[in-house]
Amino acid sequence: MATAQAELDQVFGALADPTRRAILTRLTEGDASVAQLTAPFTVSQPAISRHLKVLERAGLISRSRKATVRLSHLEAEPLREATAWLADYREYWEESYERLDALLAALQESNRTDTNGSSTGRSTS
Amino acid sequence: MATAQAELDQVFGALADPTRRAILTRLTEGDASVAQLTAPFTVSQPAISRHLKVLERAGLISRSRKATVRLSHLEAEPLREATAWLADYREYWEESYERLDALLAALQESNRTDTNGSSTGRSTS
Repeated sequence: MATAQAELDQVFGALADPTRRAILTRLTEGDASVAQLTAPFTVSQPAISRHLKVLERAGLISRSRKATVRLSHLEAEPLREATAWLADYREYWEESYERLDALLAALQESNRTDTNGSSTGRSTS
Repeated sequence: MATAQAELDQVFGALADPTRRAILTRLTEGDASVAQLTAPFTVSQPAISRHLKVLERAGLISRSRKATVRLSHLEAEPLREATAWLADYREYWEESYERLDALLAALQESNRTDTNGSSTGRSTS
C-alpha cells in the first residue's frame, strides 16, 4: 500500500520535532490560534505557521476560520495508524513484557473510564 | 527532559522512511548483513548503509562483526518509548474506541501467547 506508506512517512516525519509534538499536546486542550500556539515558544510566528503546515499535510490537524482568527484543531486519527504500526514490534521489546502489560492494563482501564457516561451504553460499574 | 525529546526526534525521524521501516521489519526475522538488507530493494548498498547509520543513531539497531561481515541487529526498545508517547493521545482518537479495544485485547492476548513457554515462570494454561 504505497498510500499507507506515504501517510506513515508524513506522520512520523511530523512527530520528529519537539515543537510540533508540543503543538499537538497543546491542541489536546482545545482549538488554538497561531498566536496562542506561538506564545509558549521562543520561535517566531512564521516558524510556528510552517510547523502547522507540516502537521496539516500529515493529517494531524485541520484548520478553520472563526471571525478573523484561524484555528487549529487536533486530528488524532493518524496517530492511531502510527501506533498500530509500532504495535507489530511489541514482541521485540525484550525484557519489557511486564512494563508493557502494565501500560496496556492502564490503557484499558483508562479507556473504560473515558467511555463511562458516554453513549456507548456500557454499564458504569 | 531534553534528552528524551531528542531521542523521540531521532526515533520518529528514523521511522519516517519506508526503506528504514522495511529494514526494521526484515530484522525481526534475524540479524542481517548489509548485502542481505540491500537485496530486496532497488536502492544501492551505500544508500542502505546510510539508512543503517540513521537507525543506529536512533538506537533502533546495533551492529556487530562476524568474520568479515557486519551484522545489524534490531533494538526495539526505543519503539516502546515512541508507542508510550503516542498512547497519551488515545483518548483523542474519536469514534475509534471499539477498534482500539480490539487492538489492545489482541495485543494482550498475543502477549500472553508470546510469553508462554518463556522463562518468566508463568503457567501455560
